[in-house]
Amino acid sequence: MFSTQPIGYVRSPYKDTQEIPKGLGAKHEAEGVLEIQAEFAPGLTDIEGFSHLIIIWEFDRSEGFNLVVKPPSDDRSHGVFATRSPRRPNPIGLTVVELLGREGPALHVRGLDMLEGTPILDIKPYLSNIPPERLRRGWLAEAEVHAGMKP
Amino acid sequence: MFSTQPIGYVRSPYKDTQEIPKGLGAKHEAEGVLEIQAEFAPGLTDIEGFSHLIIIWEFDRSEGFNLVVKPPSDDRSHGVFATRSPRRPNPIGLTVVELLGREGPALHVRGLDMLEGTPILDIKPYLSNIPPERLRRGWLAEAEVHAGMKP
Repeated sequence: MFSTQPIGYVRSPYKDTQEIPKGLGAKHEAEGVLEIQAEFAPGLTDIEGFSHLIIIWEFDRSEGFNLVVKPPSDDRSHGVFATRSPRRPNPIGLTVVELLGREGPALHVRGLDMLEGTPILDIKPYLSNIPPERLRRGWLAEAEVHAGMKP
Repeated sequence: MFSTQPIGYVRSPYKDTQEIPKGLGAKHEAEGVLEIQAEFAPGLTDIEGFSHLIIIWEFDRSEGFNLVVKPPSDDRSHGVFATRSPRRPNPIGLTVVELLGREGPALHVRGLDMLEGTPILDIKPYLSNIPPERLRRGWLAEAEVHAGMKP
């Protein structure tokens, strides 16, 4: 296996996990900047052609893990791999953001749900969707129905 | 930062990178198994309700990285973060697979593009799509037009 290294850091309006919208229907519209370190900036070449990026990052303020968790969007417990809980065996987070613009090594993005200073591990272009008619969303869809959010 | 640990391994029909479909229009329909280690299996609780999973894994047979790469889908070079190249500063791969079924700690899936024995780092439920009318795919869309694949 390998030791991770940050390729940059998130500049986010969120300083505390309590500030991040959570639970059913939470919208992530926060804007901020992905500051990529100068030595890795050549890796951003041509990235501005993509509207959306997959950001892989570290839950650096989370310690340890739980295999069964109760997420903010449900009152039932679920396996950690069926949730986006921060307390995971490998503390890896994933967020899809919209790329608003690039200034050198700084990517201006919308849709952040990370804390200020979060280490970024990787960036990948978002290339394709799953056909909506084939997508099932398990306990989350059930919780939405239970909350009266979906027909 | 942290040292990664495998939560399981991929059982794939691909033994060699040459066997994995690559380039424009490559389809990933290969079926296989994600074998999760017994100690982490409780983390899979309720995962069978999701049709698609995001698998985060290690490019364990890739060494070092290149910041500018020429992907198999284009004859021009691009920044590594605008591609899915294996030679990345953190050797993290990402694949969205369709979950066909679960037998205890074994997840039967379709859509593999990893080699046999690839270490799995994390599994997350696939929850939502980007609205197609807002998705732009940069150099990849250009390469498809150039190859006469798209109008």
